Amino acid sequence: MRPNESLLDALLELQTLDRVPRTGYLLRGVSDPESVSEHGWHLLFLIWALAPRLPDLDAGRALELALLHDLAELRVGDLPRTAARYLPDGAKDAAESAALAEILAPLGARARRLAEEYRDGASPEARLVKACDKLQLMLKVWVYERWGAGGLAEFWDNPDNFPDDDFAPVRELFEELRRRRQGWRRGSPEPGPLTP
Amino acid sequence: MRPNESLLDALLELQTLDRVPRTGYLLRGVSDPESVSEHGWHLLFLIWALAPRLPDLDAGRALELALLHDLAELRVGDLPRTAARYLPDGAKDAAESAALAEILAPLGARARRLAEEYRDGASPEARLVKACDKLQLMLKVWVYERWGAGGLAEFWDNPDNFPDDDFAPVRELFEELRRRRQGWRRGSPEPGPLTP
Amino acid sequence: MRPNESLLDALLELQTLDRVPRTGYLLRGVSDPESVSEHGWHLLFLIWALAPRLPDLDAGRALELALLHDLAELRVGDLPRTAARYLPDGAKDAAESAALAEILAPLGARARRLAEEYRDGASPEARLVKACDKLQLMLKVWVYERWGAGGLAEFWDNPDNFPDDDFAPVRELFEELRRRRQGWRRGSPEPGPLTP
Amino acid sequence: MRPNESLLDALLELQTLDRVPRTGYLLRGVSDPESVSEHGWHLLFLIWALAPRLPDLDAGRALELALLHDLAELRVGDLPRTAARYLPDGAKDAAESAALAEILAPLGARARRLAEEYRDGASPEARLVKACDKLQLMLKVWVYERWGAGGLAEFWDNPDNFPDDDFAPVRELFEELRRRRQGWRRGSPEPGPLTP
Amino acid sequence: MRPNESLLDALLELQTLDRVPRTGYLLRGVSDPESVSEHGWHLLFLIWALAPRLPDLDAGRALELALLHDLAELRVGDLPRTAARYLPDGAKDAAESAALAEILAPLGARARRLAEEYRDGASPEARLVKACDKLQLMLKVWVYERWGAGGLAEFWDNPDNFPDDDFAPVRELFEELRRRRQGWRRGSPEPGPLTP
Amino acid sequence: MRPNESLLDALLELQTLDRVPRTGYLLRGVSDPESVSEHGWHLLFLIWALAPRLPDLDAGRALELALLHDLAELRVGDLPRTAARYLPDGAKDAAESAALAEILAPLGARARRLAEEYRDGASPEARLVKACDKLQLMLKVWVYERWGAGGLAEFWDNPDNFPDDDFAPVRELFEELRRRRQGWRRGSPEPGPLTP
Repeated sequence: MRPNESLLDALLELQTLDRVPRTGYLLRGVSDPESVSEHGWHLLFLIWALAPRLPDLDAGRALELALLHDLAELRVGDLPRTAARYLPDGAKDAAESAALAEILAPLGARARRLAEEYRDGASPEARLVKACDKLQLMLKVWVYERWGAGGLAEFWDNPDNFPDDDFAPVRELFEELRRRRQGWRRGSPEPGPLTP
Repeated sequence: MRPNESLLDALLELQTLDRVPRTGYLLRGVSDPESVSEHGWHLLFLIWALAPRLPDLDAGRALELALLHDLAELRVGDLPRTAARYLPDGAKDAAESAALAEILAPLGARARRLAEEYRDGASPEARLVKACDKLQLMLKVWVYERWGAGGLAEFWDNPDNFPDDDFAPVRELFEELRRRRQGWRRGSPEPGPLTP
Repeated sequence: MRPNESLLDALLELQTLDRVPRTGYLLRGVSDPESVSEHGWHLLFLIWALAPRLPDLDAGRALELALLHDLAELRVGDLPRTAARYLPDGAKDAAESAALAEILAPLGARARRLAEEYRDGASPEARLVKACDKLQLMLKVWVYERWGAGGLAEFWDNPDNFPDDDFAPVRELFEELRRRRQGWRRGSPEPGPLTP
Repeated sequence: MRPNESLLDALLELQTLDRVPRTGYLLRGVSDPESVSEHGWHLLFLIWALAPRLPDLDAGRALELALLHDLAELRVGDLPRTAARYLPDGAKDAAESAALAEILAPLGARARRLAEEYRDGASPEARLVKACDKLQLMLKVWVYERWGAGGLAEFWDNPDNFPDDDFAPVRELFEELRRRRQGWRRGSPEPGPLTP
Repeated sequence: MRPNESLLDALLELQTLDRVPRTGYLLRGVSDPESVSEHGWHLLFLIWALAPRLPDLDAGRALELALLHDLAELRVGDLPRTAARYLPDGAKDAAESAALAEILAPLGARARRLAEEYRDGASPEARLVKACDKLQLMLKVWVYERWGAGGLAEFWDNPDNFPDDDFAPVRELFEELRRRRQGWRRGSPEPGPLTP
Repeated sequence: MRPNESLLDALLELQTLDRVPRTGYLLRGVSDPESVSEHGWHLLFLIWALAPRLPDLDAGRALELALLHDLAELRVGDLPRTAARYLPDGAKDAAESAALAEILAPLGARARRLAEEYRDGASPEARLVKACDKLQLMLKVWVYERWGAGGLAEFWDNPDNFPDDDFAPVRELFEELRRRRQGWRRGSPEPGPLTP
């Protein structure tokens, strides 16, 4: 049967997330790109680090939403962004909801409700996770560019990759990142070592 | 604009197929698994090698169908088999058709017609490509098992992976492969070196 | 200066955790082994999944502790277990505390206090994270073994790798895992596919 | 015995072509460079795509020649270009012919005749494959450069890498590629995303 | 010009040896196999470790011979063993001599004389290096097998891979290794952890 | 027991050095960075190549010192440079001495004495190895930069990475390397191919 039957089944299946590469980087030639579980860790850290700047939000809930937000990619794949162009409206979201429900079946309704909240952006916390997801995307882009990757400039040209203005601390970090990159790309001295 | 505008655009985009891993192997822990372009080469070779045993078929046409059969995965992803379970009926096929049409737009209607013929299994040649696609899947499974991979046994339990009986030479090769594996798994001496 | 000066500095430095392999697997020949950030994600998921079975604990706090527990490895390295044999008592813990304080300097005292709590096992939540860290180690060991890795049997011989009895749900999951492995190693049929 | 005895033997041996990296890229530091089977696929696609522009040629025959052109590298290695400098005249060609004959022994004389035709450039189709082989080399060079590779400039300085003037559509594609690269290297804005 | 002109040129060229994989392992599916420079280090260590057991030999000279013995593969490739079958007698040795002379041109006649001594087995030290080269091959085979590699059994069936009886300490180590492997393959308990 | 009991045990353990990446490169995003055994080979070659320019030194002894200088990293890890900042003074050296003594226990006092001589810089040969270790670090940095790596500029800003003036031939090679890099970075034409 396809839904997992025990928590152990679910945990074992999830280990494979380490082998699901983030397609956006992979298709642009990044060697050994971030896996979905690596992306997940950075997103969780980012939310936790920003929590004190967002006192009106429930950080614990945001962490839970972030933990679940991408794991359906294990069964659906980390679709390249172009895939959305060719699939029926909503098909990707529906597929991910169904996959997540089966992966996490042993955890009951709790997981499903969180996944729906995230998918629908039904709470400020869900929207925060979406904003941080974009910021984390761009943090990694910049690091890959500093390491020498050459095919990622287009990410900076597409405002869909930028967090919107709803959460000022997220947006401010993004703008600081963008300024740092612009300084570097214009030929000013390198902005110090990446690694201390 | 999304459809490619020139043949050069299409050729450059296609180079990236080397970085699209075959998901079925990747999710079962195979290191450095076959890419979509590697799979494509082996499929073409297999069809060419079998052609003299299938005198009633148009081998040239089969080669053309095989050349196009997977390249839409560049824009849609090599979806894990489980994805089909969560997407609407026909959504994957429709997405791949649309993607292929845009990737190969500079080539005109020729590519589109071939892709439709393959998708619909509308000719014996199209059905031969589908049968050989399965045989090639299992050839690679066996090689990975010989190299030490441990998570692939389930492929041999699922008749969906086996070519059907329409093309005797394909089926015979598959049965020969299956016998060879059974001999090995039962603890008989190893069937000689993999590499001469 | 060595302590990070801004949150952005810290976030960018942390991206590199993806490139820090888990040494225990690497030295036993696992190809493309788990990174420290991948390990972190699985640990967080495990704690979250077990939370309903541990109603007396503060799951949110455990998640925070887990988030910080390994990130000093960025500056200290993921020392092989043997290293502890050759370093002065407590040197590893002290180094990780100092490194974490500098990495997360822009986050103030909050991070430092959590790190100390974890290091000293000063709360039930800290001890839970330590127990889950061991369980996650063994979950991944078993998956690698299923994938074909051959050098990991010794992990099952060393009780230091097993969660102790303080948290029954953690211990029970571990015992279930161990039984599943024993069944498989004794030559019974493979316990079904790893990936649904 | 060294010649393969059955078609299945030959097919299994050929699977290993995925692990033979293209030496020219490898020795210049490209990470995860094209394999010989990946190169083969792109060459086949290129020939097929150009066929309508070359109405006087037998495209099906060119595809067959291309399919065989590199597979002897499985037993002889993908020799670095410098190797030819140190081997007796003709030794590489002779070795590849002998290796191909043994790999494809179960296929009889058909394979051997095609391989000889290719080696000797004995037909317009054979010469077309050689021209496309060079164009494909340079297409991949450019993609690697866009991805960030730094050691490949010398390829553009060596006319031996360029298709000659015998086949205008091949040469025109190469010149279009070269112009595109020159625009980019001169510091003009990046020529749009690599991946749509 | 092809011969290196300065020592710095030679040193920079040699860095690339790290990217030349040992073909014998690569073609049998070993992931991330030993590079030529890794092989070289182990060979040097082995000779040094055995030196006290071989008091009549000049260990320093053997180290020099070992240092040079494989570096021509940078320009000739690490030919698969099968290649020798298809090349004229002596062509491989001659090519390696010529390549080595050009790589190490700035070092003068010293390098050339050592290379010739090794090629011709013209001293006990040269023959010792050849014996240790085989032992090192088999040490690595066994480690890969312990790590899970499955395609290497044939190495143990081919006496060409075994050091001959000229140097008793080398032969004894090999026999000890072979006994250890036989114990393990016969299903006795695993012979303790690979890594302490 | 932790010290190795036989030479065979030691040799097998050492094979794993191939899987210990050089942390300094790894943390700056270099793909597939040098292993400790690869670094060791290049260091040995460098010392051998320079020997005729340093007639007052015992080159054979320097080779022995170099052979041992890094192998304790197998049990202690290749600590990132930052680790020294967080460990007690001398702890790293003491740990490496203890680890080396246990790895090489079957070789007796010879190995231990050489390791101490190197650690303490107690002979001109030991100091030469330390100087060449830095030169080899920078040779590889430059090659990675030529290959496209972007995160390594800081190595050139830190005089701790440069050999000091004690050994003129080492220092001169370093200055020649630095001049070559400066020419390249200033935008002059590329200094010829990296690979002949």
